[in-house]
Amino acid sequence: MVLEMKVMIMGMDGYLGWPLAMHLTMKGHVVCGIDNLSRRRRVAEIGSWSATPIKSPTERLVAFEKEFSKAIGFTFGDLRDVDFTFQVIDDFKPDAIVHLGEIISAPYSMIDVHHCNETMMNNIVSTNNILYAMHKFVPNCHLVKLGTMGEYGTPNIDIPEGFFEIEYHGRKDRLPFPRQAGSWYHQTKVHDTHNIIFACKIWELRSTDIMQGVVHGIRTEEMTSDELLTRFDFDEVWGTALNRFCAQAIIGHELTTYGKGGQTRGYIALRDSIQCLTIAIENPPEKGVYRTFNQFDECYSVIELADHVVKVCDELGTKANAWHIENPRVEAEEHYYNPDHYELYKLGFRPTNTLNDELRITLKELLRWKDRIEAKKNRILPTVYWKK
Amino acid sequence: MVLEMKVMIMGMDGYLGWPLAMHLTMKGHVVCGIDNLSRRRRVAEIGSWSATPIKSPTERLVAFEKEFSKAIGFTFGDLRDVDFTFQVIDDFKPDAIVHLGEIISAPYSMIDVHHCNETMMNNIVSTNNILYAMHKFVPNCHLVKLGTMGEYGTPNIDIPEGFFEIEYHGRKDRLPFPRQAGSWYHQTKVHDTHNIIFACKIWELRSTDIMQGVVHGIRTEEMTSDELLTRFDFDEVWGTALNRFCAQAIIGHELTTYGKGGQTRGYIALRDSIQCLTIAIENPPEKGVYRTFNQFDECYSVIELADHVVKVCDELGTKANAWHIENPRVEAEEHYYNPDHYELYKLGFRPTNTLNDELRITLKELLRWKDRIEAKKNRILPTVYWKK
Repeated sequence: MVLEMKVMIMGMDGYLGWPLAMHLTMKGHVVCGIDNLSRRRRVAEIGSWSATPIKSPTERLVAFEKEFSKAIGFTFGDLRDVDFTFQVIDDFKPDAIVHLGEIISAPYSMIDVHHCNETMMNNIVSTNNILYAMHKFVPNCHLVKLGTMGEYGTPNIDIPEGFFEIEYHGRKDRLPFPRQAGSWYHQTKVHDTHNIIFACKIWELRSTDIMQGVVHGIRTEEMTSDELLTRFDFDEVWGTALNRFCAQAIIGHELTTYGKGGQTRGYIALRDSIQCLTIAIENPPEKGVYRTFNQFDECYSVIELADHVVKVCDELGTKANAWHIENPRVEAEEHYYNPDHYELYKLGFRPTNTLNDELRITLKELLRWKDRIEAKKNRILPTVYWKK
Repeated sequence: MVLEMKVMIMGMDGYLGWPLAMHLTMKGHVVCGIDNLSRRRRVAEIGSWSATPIKSPTERLVAFEKEFSKAIGFTFGDLRDVDFTFQVIDDFKPDAIVHLGEIISAPYSMIDVHHCNETMMNNIVSTNNILYAMHKFVPNCHLVKLGTMGEYGTPNIDIPEGFFEIEYHGRKDRLPFPRQAGSWYHQTKVHDTHNIIFACKIWELRSTDIMQGVVHGIRTEEMTSDELLTRFDFDEVWGTALNRFCAQAIIGHELTTYGKGGQTRGYIALRDSIQCLTIAIENPPEKGVYRTFNQFDECYSVIELADHVVKVCDELGTKANAWHIENPRVEAEEHYYNPDHYELYKLGFRPTNTLNDELRITLKELLRWKDRIEAKKNRILPTVYWKK
């Protein structure tokens, strides 16, 4: 039996934010979301849109309340604004803050120096403002911060959860695992990690830093009508590997694997990401404790993902082909990859669907939005190159 | 025989920037400096000033040219401005950029959320703008970036120079040494380090990242007249441990050691810092190489430093006393500390004076500016606390 908690979701309008808000509310928590809707603007900036025709925040909130007779709070505003951030946190006095309010695209951050700086400033300043607000108004609040498995890069050794015990020159210490991120966006998550560790140390805040794998999927159980759908991005800038492949398959576009396709990462379904975030929220660490969860289900290489999509498409009678294109990124295309992920399992995380089961759901749903994907098919092939 | 190089010094108006500009020019290099004079404004902001009465940039440049018949270039501007940064780098086409143009005070960054964000943004954006400018206009240029030994914190193991070979779960890799910085300011240097490593990787830039110890001292050989003095800060915000102790001793103020005083750090004299930076500039790494130098001479605890100052003051007939006050910072006051510093020695670095010899020079010089220190003695005791 978990007590009712007051949870503030920063970035509630996003891919994860909206389904998390619904899920927590249905579990009996009191949710207040914050967003400046910048994701919608930034996706439009590059000439794209969500495959799912998402409603405005107000329409979604009204539809949710009509459907479930429960209310979700929402305040429009920018977390880069210190006064705004202080006020909403002081007013709501959350037990937990889930910080999803960052710019989350590697290619977007690599467009040019302006997008690099914009991503740096947005992510670092918003997180620092939240940390200061917690220190000042809610020192017992639990920060659940979305980081990324991409912070670690692809070292030639096992990847622990955040910290490792090492022996060096005959002496021992427990140290943060070295970060080697592969884009400006991923670097901002590394910077946040360092800043949050420091804040927890000096102010005795509590935080769970989520090193999340790539999220895929489109449906969670609370999406009982089209009014309640979350966004689904598939373009070169905002779409991640697996979701992009699904959208490509739907319109008969070759699946664009970058380079050799041996890049291996951890993946997790949207519904399981929501499950994990809920577990983190409902099981806060002690005061002053900073902890790290590696949040993913299974690891796959890009070419394995493409194979899975091709296979499920076959079942559904759609022909899909994998295609190797020049890799726009600078990354190892063949490498060792063995990250730990014990902490969430210890707290009860159990993945729901197999990859293929989840792909069946995603692909069937996307068939409904084929025209919307078709309309933006010129935004699928990469135009943002790391080397320029 | 070193070839003449074009060196651009970002932050030329600062404590290190000005003596470095003079030294490089006297060695036959062509120097152009950039500064927005924000250090002068920020020191005034907290009600303090330099113990040495420094001249305006123009007066110093004129005095230097009159004295040595050599010119130093200078452009006023802000490195947070992308267009400005691109233009000055494209115009001058430097062989090396020495980046000293950051906000460098731990207490300043800890004043409040605004000073935290200001330090983060200033330092990260200026560095990113320089990296993009190098990539675009001078891809062979060598970035000599000032970091700090404070990036490493005080781990319970030896501190290598930037990277270490480790074995973990039976596999080996060479990884960046974990960073555990102790203030928002120090965190910005950690963020820069990660960003620069990434830029060198994707764009094949070359960079020397200087993890510098605490610099002390007041004189370098080019300061042949008072018009050519560099700044000397001694207040709680801008003054570092040893320089602050010297200023305190001069006005009969107790030497304020924070807490137990067992905090151990690497120290280097101003003249040796300039020697090291010159070595780094004149010995660039290969294209695409990011390297780290731990730049310090000897390690001392705070209480050892105070003892040295008391002893030298005795010789000079001034009575000084060490005093333990509440530590405004959150830091270990007794800890293991054993950082490597081989790389600069391999390239020829030889420390010039003993600590006591350097202290004699500093204390004698400061006696001339006793009235200026006395005038700001109310800005010596700490008012900025990490925990608040």
